[in-house]
Amino acid sequence: MIIQKSTNPRISTFDPDNFSFGNTFIDHMVICEYENGKWGDVKVMPYGGLPFSPAMMGVNYGQACFEGMKAYKDPNGDVFLFRPEKNFERINKSAKRLAMPEVTEEMFLDGLKALVDIDRAWIPQGEGMSLYIRPLIFATEEALKARISNKYMFAIVATPAKSYYTEPVSVLISDFYSRSANGGVGSAKAAGNYAASFYPTQLAIEQGYEQIIWTDDATHEYFEESGTMNVFVRINDTIYTPPTSEKILDGVTRDSFIQLAKKRGIEVKVEPIPVKTVIEAQKNGTLKEVWGVGTAVVTSVFQALGYKGEKLMLPSLPAEESFALALQKDLVNIQTNHAEDPFGWRVLVEKKIMETA
Amino acid sequence: MIIQKSTNPRISTFDPDNFSFGNTFIDHMVICEYENGKWGDVKVMPYGGLPFSPAMMGVNYGQACFEGMKAYKDPNGDVFLFRPEKNFERINKSAKRLAMPEVTEEMFLDGLKALVDIDRAWIPQGEGMSLYIRPLIFATEEALKARISNKYMFAIVATPAKSYYTEPVSVLISDFYSRSANGGVGSAKAAGNYAASFYPTQLAIEQGYEQIIWTDDATHEYFEESGTMNVFVRINDTIYTPPTSEKILDGVTRDSFIQLAKKRGIEVKVEPIPVKTVIEAQKNGTLKEVWGVGTAVVTSVFQALGYKGEKLMLPSLPAEESFALALQKDLVNIQTNHAEDPFGWRVLVEKKIMETA
Ligand SMILES: Cc1ncc(COP(=O)(O)O)c(C=O)c1O
Ligand SMILES: Cc1ncc(COP(=O)(O)O)c(C=O)c1O
Repeated sequence: MIIQKSTNPRISTFDPDNFSFGNTFIDHMVICEYENGKWGDVKVMPYGGLPFSPAMMGVNYGQACFEGMKAYKDPNGDVFLFRPEKNFERINKSAKRLAMPEVTEEMFLDGLKALVDIDRAWIPQGEGMSLYIRPLIFATEEALKARISNKYMFAIVATPAKSYYTEPVSVLISDFYSRSANGGVGSAKAAGNYAASFYPTQLAIEQGYEQIIWTDDATHEYFEESGTMNVFVRINDTIYTPPTSEKILDGVTRDSFIQLAKKRGIEVKVEPIPVKTVIEAQKNGTLKEVWGVGTAVVTSVFQALGYKGEKLMLPSLPAEESFALALQKDLVNIQTNHAEDPFGWRVLVEKKIMETA
Repeated sequence: MIIQKSTNPRISTFDPDNFSFGNTFIDHMVICEYENGKWGDVKVMPYGGLPFSPAMMGVNYGQACFEGMKAYKDPNGDVFLFRPEKNFERINKSAKRLAMPEVTEEMFLDGLKALVDIDRAWIPQGEGMSLYIRPLIFATEEALKARISNKYMFAIVATPAKSYYTEPVSVLISDFYSRSANGGVGSAKAAGNYAASFYPTQLAIEQGYEQIIWTDDATHEYFEESGTMNVFVRINDTIYTPPTSEKILDGVTRDSFIQLAKKRGIEVKVEPIPVKTVIEAQKNGTLKEVWGVGTAVVTSVFQALGYKGEKLMLPSLPAEESFALALQKDLVNIQTNHAEDPFGWRVLVEKKIMETA
């Protein structure tokens, strides 16, 4: 690994109480280039622009995939990653589906730790605060031909993140738009999946909703995901989530919620969720909660479901009766080193670079 | 329009008899940047890299779409575009579906003409030669948040293109992978659609096929497209092509073929093509031709269809009996100014820049 420290760090200008999530970049980034069939050296270097032509295949053909993960700082100042090996596995699954070279553990996990280590001062401390980390792979060859690229860049960039607390939102159950096809790339974190969702989401927002519950494209009769989150439904005291498939992203938060629910003795059924079942449960009062889960906000609680022109309200449970909030708390406590970690999910980021540099 | 001529042109090194299509770039490119809700100046400038960070939304979320079109040089050295207004309409249709700002006629058509004009020396002359032109729009904002970008770049880059002559190919009728979902982005020239097709195409190549005939993702019972081309099927003396829809790209070549076929008095049916009908026609000898059409190669004739483990051969018609080749010839003659243009498809690129510069 090559480490080139910034000679012009911006950390002194960073105000952890006042910054814009997503647009504020830490001082460094990781890059690694692929050419002639192999990856080169992993480099930690100052964050910034690199020369790319508009003929770059990554923007022409969308041959690009990414991950989203977080680092948390505990009250002692120790920094932890959460299940990073899951993101490592998933980026390679995405890469495979997009005909891109897989990355190595050294590039992904060691690169991640080096970056978080060197820029640990950028990680805000306190409830809900974290560093949001974005590993990605994209095609860099300049070529105007729709074929597999011969050159790639693996990069890791990161931005400080604020409290994940969000107000309950209203979501629209899609009966026209969809995010994935049978035999498509829905289970990959493919760049193009996100752009495809912007316009339908915009239309939902214009109708007074915050997100879309994606349904299967052929019939729109089954729940798939919600926005960029996996979805859970609670009917009476059982929680349901659709099985992952080639159309549904295998979320790390989803998997963690399933394990945490089982640990609490909550019945979890991983099975297809018919829209009809949810609507009926809403009408007969057995529908208790519907929520989305993902790294960015952990849990987004839904207050209403839009369906065929109707806005169906969900009960507003007191916090102590909510499974969604209980599981969120269990997860956050593990992530931030406020609770035991019986699953071995936390990974300490050791202090190495600052001392040896 | 701002014109900044290259002070270091590479045209003297260009050998029209020996160059690599897609990797050889003409001396200039067009760019135009979008910020604060509006497009800036259109610039013609030397082709090359621009500083983009790996946090660029275009590569993270695939918010990017493109066009593919050609300029042809006739024996007198006059240069023509082919139906450029169709590509202009289509890039804006793609942009809308991907929640991107539409481009203006000045940016697209005038930018195109200025670029082709300034670099007309790069257009190889002779049968099948042309300049392949790539207009594209991509999100340039640096932000780690899956939402609509606030900044974009419109660019036009181009590469000389060789003879479109291709050997007949074998194509595999897909019974698992698909390129578009109901309610998805199949009818947009969205960057992500292309990356999604690479892996399935690779698998088809490993089975001895060159391309995939995409079928509907829900049942795989209907033809959609072939590779990155629209598809035509001839049974007896009638030609069939699927209607365009939100899943099928509205190809300029497809539309031109339909009009040219009608002009020749060939019966054209624009209707869904069941895989079963094609297979039956192959078995009973009424299937005469299957071919793909698109700007890149105009026509790609198929010699065999792979279906459920069988390789079904197509007749090898003498050239004078082939509708595919007759229509291809009609089209190429119009494109290259070797025939009358009753449709008004050709657009002359006037000599302006070289003289005034
Ligand atoms: C489409 C989609 N579904 C679900 C998720 C949740 O996955 P994770 O819990 O790994 O963040 C994400 C990522 O954030 C996503 O992009
Ligand atoms: C998916 C797809 N279908 C069809 C076509 C053919 O369109 P056109 O004839 O406008 O080149 C293209 C573009 O080349 C394409 O990318």
